[in-house]
This record gives sequence, C-alpha cells and structure tokens, in this order.
Amino acid sequence: MTILLTHGDREYLRDPGEELQTDLGVLTVPEDVEPGDTLFTHLDEEFTVRRLRGPDLFHHFERTGAPMLPRDIGLVVGETGVSAGDRVLDAGTGTGVLAGYLGRIGADVVTFERKADFAEVARENIEMADVADRVDVRTGDITEEVDELGEFDVLTLDTPDAAEVVAHTPELLADGGSLGVYAPFVESARDVEMAAREANLDNIRTMETIQREMDFDDRGTRPTTTGVGHTGYLTFARNV
Amino acid sequence: MTILLTHGDREYLRDPGEELQTDLGVLTVPEDVEPGDTLFTHLDEEFTVRRLRGPDLFHHFERTGAPMLPRDIGLVVGETGVSAGDRVLDAGTGTGVLAGYLGRIGADVVTFERKADFAEVARENIEMADVADRVDVRTGDITEEVDELGEFDVLTLDTPDAAEVVAHTPELLADGGSLGVYAPFVESARDVEMAAREANLDNIRTMETIQREMDFDDRGTRPTTTGVGHTGYLTFARNV
Amino acid sequence: MTILLTHGDREYLRDPGEELQTDLGVLTVPEDVEPGDTLFTHLDEEFTVRRLRGPDLFHHFERTGAPMLPRDIGLVVGETGVSAGDRVLDAGTGTGVLAGYLGRIGADVVTFERKADFAEVARENIEMADVADRVDVRTGDITEEVDELGEFDVLTLDTPDAAEVVAHTPELLADGGSLGVYAPFVESARDVEMAAREANLDNIRTMETIQREMDFDDRGTRPTTTGVGHTGYLTFARNV
Amino acid sequence: MTILLTHGDREYLRDPGEELQTDLGVLTVPEDVEPGDTLFTHLDEEFTVRRLRGPDLFHHFERTGAPMLPRDIGLVVGETGVSAGDRVLDAGTGTGVLAGYLGRIGADVVTFERKADFAEVARENIEMADVADRVDVRTGDITEEVDELGEFDVLTLDTPDAAEVVAHTPELLADGGSLGVYAPFVESARDVEMAAREANLDNIRTMETIQREMDFDDRGTRPTTTGVGHTGYLTFARNV
Repeated sequence: MTILLTHGDREYLRDPGEELQTDLGVLTVPEDVEPGDTLFTHLDEEFTVRRLRGPDLFHHFERTGAPMLPRDIGLVVGETGVSAGDRVLDAGTGTGVLAGYLGRIGADVVTFERKADFAEVARENIEMADVADRVDVRTGDITEEVDELGEFDVLTLDTPDAAEVVAHTPELLADGGSLGVYAPFVESARDVEMAAREANLDNIRTMETIQREMDFDDRGTRPTTTGVGHTGYLTFARNV
Repeated sequence: MTILLTHGDREYLRDPGEELQTDLGVLTVPEDVEPGDTLFTHLDEEFTVRRLRGPDLFHHFERTGAPMLPRDIGLVVGETGVSAGDRVLDAGTGTGVLAGYLGRIGADVVTFERKADFAEVARENIEMADVADRVDVRTGDITEEVDELGEFDVLTLDTPDAAEVVAHTPELLADGGSLGVYAPFVESARDVEMAAREANLDNIRTMETIQREMDFDDRGTRPTTTGVGHTGYLTFARNV
Repeated sequence: MTILLTHGDREYLRDPGEELQTDLGVLTVPEDVEPGDTLFTHLDEEFTVRRLRGPDLFHHFERTGAPMLPRDIGLVVGETGVSAGDRVLDAGTGTGVLAGYLGRIGADVVTFERKADFAEVARENIEMADVADRVDVRTGDITEEVDELGEFDVLTLDTPDAAEVVAHTPELLADGGSLGVYAPFVESARDVEMAAREANLDNIRTMETIQREMDFDDRGTRPTTTGVGHTGYLTFARNV
Repeated sequence: MTILLTHGDREYLRDPGEELQTDLGVLTVPEDVEPGDTLFTHLDEEFTVRRLRGPDLFHHFERTGAPMLPRDIGLVVGETGVSAGDRVLDAGTGTGVLAGYLGRIGADVVTFERKADFAEVARENIEMADVADRVDVRTGDITEEVDELGEFDVLTLDTPDAAEVVAHTPELLADGGSLGVYAPFVESARDVEMAAREANLDNIRTMETIQREMDFDDRGTRPTTTGVGHTGYLTFARNV
C-alpha cells in the first residue's frame, strides 16, 4: 500500500520499506507503517503518514493524457449507481483514475486500454491506489473482445469509438445495468446517444455540466469571473 | 433483500416470501429468489427479478422531503473520494438516498436525522437498499453529539445548521479526510464556506452545478429548451 | 401611431380614431391622442394611454412563428453596435420583432421574408411599431438579390440558409461593418462560423447564452429551480 | 467626429485636422474626411478611414474602471427597449460605454458620475463617440437630485447605491418606462430586487447570464474549455 508522507504543504508518495530523502533529512518508511503514524527524519523533522484518498489519485497518478475529473467520475458513479461488488466493464483506461475510483468503491473492474505503454502506466497507478486485486487493466481493443466478456452491471466508456461499443450494450449489460459514456465533442455525444437509441436502451439522456466556483469576499458573493470550462458530455442509459 | 419485479415498464418492490397481486395475476416471491430469475403469475404472465441499483433507490425510496439527486450524490462521492471501508458521518438523513448510496459503496455510515418519523422512514428505506448493516440511522441532533462521535474519513452535511457543524470538522475528520456540504441557498453556502475557512480547512471551494440535457433530433442538436434547474451549492474541503 | 390603452393589468392596442368596447364601457380614441393622456369610457371608467416600447412589440406583435427574444435582440444590438442612421440588412423577418427593434433604434432596415403571408403580417406589425418609414419588409429570398442590395453597416440573419448568405458578407458589409447570426442548432451555428472563416471575416465568435432568473425569498437566494432554456447560438463577426 | 485610421491590424484614432505619425510615415487627416476614404502617408502607405462603431467604443474609450461589456449593454437595450428619442437617466457613468451606446441609439441621456475626474474622461469619450449632443455627463450624486430631474423613459443604474435610487423609480419613470440595473454581487442584486418590489414596480426579474464561446475545430464541436466568466446580475422592471 502506497502512502503519503506529508509535512506542511509537501506530499511524497512512498511504499513501505522505501526511503525518503529531502532537505528535511532522510527517513525509511517502516514495513508496518499505518495511516496516522508520525515518522521522523534523521534531522528530527516530522512527517505524517496519510492514506491516499480519491482526490489524491487524481493528483498523484502518473498521467498519460488528460484524466477524467473527479466531478465527472462522480457524475458517472451517481447516475449509474455503481456499488461495491458490481462488475464493471470500462474502456479507454487512460491514466486509470476512473478505474481506480471504481475499484476503491469496491467494484470489480475490467478496463481496456489500446496502447500498451499507457496500460502499463495505468497498472502502476492502480497498484499505487491499492486496488490491483479489483481492477484488471487489459491491453487491447474492447470492440474485438465484446463477444467473450460476459455480463456486467455497469459499462463505462471514454473512447473515440464509444458509439460502436454502445451498440453491444444489450449483450454486455445485465438486466437493469447502466451505461455511462464520456464524450468530449457534441458530434461524438450525438453518435453515442443515437447508438443507445438504436440498441433500444432505456432512460437515455446526454447531459452537459457547467460548474462554477463561487467567490465569497468582503464585498459580496458572485460566481468567479474566471469561469469554469467545459469538460465533456455524459450520456447515460439503462438496459431495462 | 428487496428485489424489483419487472414486466415491461412496470416495476414492483417485494421482499422474498411476499406476494404480488396485479391484473396480470398473483405470484409469491420465493425465499431463495435471485436477480435474473423469471417468475410467473397464476395467469402465466412473466416477471423478471432485478436487483435494486442506485438510481432505483432514488425512485423507490419513500420520500420525507426532496431527496438529493443522483447527480449531487455523485458529485459528493467524486469530490470527497468516498471508498469502501470509509467511515462516513452524515447529517440531515432525510429520505436517506445519500446514506443509501454511500452504504452501497461499502462505506460505514452514521447518519443523523432530527425528526423521529423521518428517521423511521429512512431506516425502512435503508433496509430496502440492503445496507442496514452499513448505515446506522440515528434520531437526533448531530451538534449535540459532536464530542463523542470519534473520527471519520468523510463528513457529509445537508442541514440548515451545517455551518455550525463545519466548525467542528477538525475534530470529526481524520487527517486527509473530506467534507462535503449541500446548501440550497447562496447565503447558507456562504456561511458554510466561511465556517470552513474559520476552521482552517484546506482546498475549500463552493461549486454551483448547472446541467442541461442535450436534444438530438433530425433537425439538429441543441440543449433542451426547457432547461435544467438549480439544485444546490456544494462546498468541499479537506482536513489537511 | 398605435397606442396602448391600459386599465390595471389590462392592455388594449388601438389606433387613433378607433373604438374600444369592453365590459368597462365604450370609448373612442381621439385622433390627437398622446401618451400620458387619460381617457374615459361612457361608464366613466379610466384608461391611460401608453406609447408602445420594445418589450411591448414582443408581446403584442401578431406571431407567425417563435419571435426572437428581447434578450437575443439585445445581444445582437450590443455586439454589432447598431446605431441610429445605420443601414441594416436583415433576413428571416418572421414576426418582425428584431426589425422593429432596429427601426426603433433609428436604423434603416431592409428585411427579407420568403413567405408572402408572413411578410404581410410583419408589415402590419412594423406599422404598429410606428417604424414603417424605417423598415422595408420585402417578400423574397435574400440569396437571389445579394448582388443588387448595395452596402450595409450591419447584417443580421435568422434563416436556415444563413451560412450561404454569410459567404457574401464581404460584398454586403461596409468596412468595419458587423454580422450577427442567430442559429438554433449546433450544426447550423457551425456552418455559419465556418462560412465566416471562409469569407475571411474578423473577430469571429459563436456564443451560447444561458440565462437564469434569481429567486429571492425569505429563506434565501438561489437561481430559480425551474431553469431558463436554451434559445439559440449567436455568431458575430466584423468585416475588417 | 473622431475616425479610425486602419492599416492591416493597426487602428489609430484621430480627429479631422490631426496628424498621424508612425513608422509607415506621416499623414494629416483632412478636415472633410469621410468614412471609406483612403489616405496616404508621405511614404505612400495606405490607410483606410473607418467610422467608429459600438464595439470600437468599448475598445478605444479611455477607461476609468471596468466598463460594462457590449453583451450586458445589449441585454439592457433589449430588455428595456431603449429607442431613438427616448429620455434616459443613467447613473454610474464610469467609462461611459453604456451612455455612449445609448446616445448612438438616438436616446437623450443624462448620466451621473460622482468622481469629477472620471466624469471628465467620460466626457472626452462621449465626444469621441460623436454623441456629445445627446449625452449629458453630469458630475454629482443622482440621489441628491432625484427630485428635480423630471420624467424619463428608461432608468439605467450601475452604482453601489442603486437600491436607494430604485426606491425613487415611480417618480423618475414615465408610465410604462423601464428600469435596468447592473449589480456585480448577489447581495446588491437582492437589495435592488427588494427595492423594486417595495416600489411596486411591475415585471421585476433579476437575471444572471452565462455565456460560452463555442469551439469548432476539425475534431468536433464543444464549448470552449476555458470558460466565460460571470460579469454581473441584471435586474429589470417596468413602471406600470
């Protein structure tokens, strides 16, 4: 289990047994380290041991592209209702933040990444998130294996060819199972929605999410003037 | 475990051993019923057995007020990173949809509801969601018990006096733990943000979320002209 | 000049010399009626004379389709900077609200409407707005007359084939002149933007506008929960 | 009349009779210069003469603070229906962009600016916009002169004490006249709305406007990821 060593604003990722060398001195993480422990360097500087939480995955995972934001991961979880014990099929692993979150929720995840080097990074990230036993990162193209994958409770997609996979949703999802697709462009979102209609899924809807941070200061309250940008469209549907 | 009996668009909630009487005939749910089973009424009409998923909780829970939407629940999960095994303290149980979702994610939830009759309904809902072993619905006022509750990984609040509870966040949250507060009004959101600043929490931000459903038809694509309304402000922070 | 006769919440449109018959009695509008006058029915009920203002056009014009909202008209005026004395070319007259507003601003407007019956209604509306001397409603297809129209300060379009007209912008607009196009769908907005780029226009941008009404009540402040829908995309550019 | 001298992307403001000296050479603007004229420097470089349009005011006015955006000016024009010949009372002149736009629309504007130096800059800006005969910039506090100002068709406010002025709307506005108030913060917008209710105005509403620029590229279409920020709240009402 990778842990965070924190000192003020500083955060370092280390596994048990590893060493931390900084200007604050050197320390070795004990094999039996526990979140909440306090460790000291040879210069007697104090570090606190913290367990990685979801948002830490987003910040500390090695990136192979723009990872899905915690907000969009949350919307996928909320709308599909992923729960512990669910079987989830995911494609477009990328950095692996969505798969890591789903594993931490207790779901059993099979996730496909086409690029072997990206898949390798994702595997290391998943290891760091301590959910390697729940998240199986497979190198390959999900569209080529659709027939042998079996049945899942939830299908999550973040790939350019998502619409093609959506066409197979009825075979891939258990009765009552949910689909969640992330698409960056209007055109790809439209293709996904149309594929979902074609596949006779139920409760199909494509949402756009605009978030704005509020600015509270002494003069008053308003949304931040800088704005919060678009991330992507999310299409949801159920197999009922 | 409560299951859904479905026939076309119809859905009925039943526990094992219970009877379903409709114009399609009568059937008794076997004690060993499993999701995916097919049952027949005495008129030979077919019903499919389905497990309740997150969105089903939202639709089938008995309501004691406006429940938090799956979208907002998802945002809370995504931004706080709730995971299986987390200890969550929740106040403002209401209908219990948030607590039910968190229980399904594998978290151990203590949730406070001031009104005894609301708490009783919430307990029945939690039972229906099959997470009574993980979700402890307590009747009472969280502000009166703050000192004896211990330490949690996540604190979620949806109560008018949330700002008062936020002041106690440093005692209630473990190092690295997350706070998520739902506030319907600008003024209450401001109070919460100010309380979080006063409590020296980190990474404090209050978000407003606007969602719009896309309308894809033969003429073209556009956001729906009907609009999607405001639900509430969400304030997040961490105890680091 | 058509005027409004108001009594409490009631409003009636009448021209000088016309009669008003309601349950409050009968009155004849004097030929020399002026805004601010008070008139009495034969039952001695009082009516106030009011001049029509912009928003009244929106409410009292006879409609031949969904008229452009005051908000979108305003955005066109603000971004193109239409001013008194400007020569404006408009296509897709429809109900004539945009043309009526522009005439009231003092611009000289030539507006094209393909359907003869719609054009006739628009002419009556423009008459009612008292700007018939400034707004020339022509029945016909602007694309067929592009070569003989001369040069304008502003070009405003709200037609399905707007992109085709945009291609002629450099011939139609004076140096420094502005284009404003309303398109209901993403696809048509994209076509317009692409045509503007192809025509080498400057400062091209397509905006989407989301408006929300604020709800101020005793409990607090928030955006209305009902939402304010999408109207259309607005593309602006200049010929510089 | 100030005109723009343009050469490629360069723009220079000059009055008739003034000289332009750049690395492209020297030229003197003829007293009888007209928009559309071509002028040459002593090095035979060509400049085109252009009339200032609304958006040019926004870019070329000397600023004494953040001027109101063309979009918000447009919304004020659209919702209040300002037209040529209208009498407009404005407070919070600032840079004078709103007053300049209204003058260009043909309205007769009296605008109040508390700070003498700001008022002086606004006067120069209004001169440049060629509407000094229509826009009277007064140095002073509108609240102190409310009783002697007479009656207007439209009242526009962008001042911290707008709510106080709104209380006088019934005396300041003609029957059917419109109020438009710009407020940067929720709290000030609430005060304005409450003052409008207190004053028994009609059709009161406070709007928040979110605009997003669309991003059309080869891969597809989406709102820009950078976001477009909040500007202010706009409250509208009528005196009917």
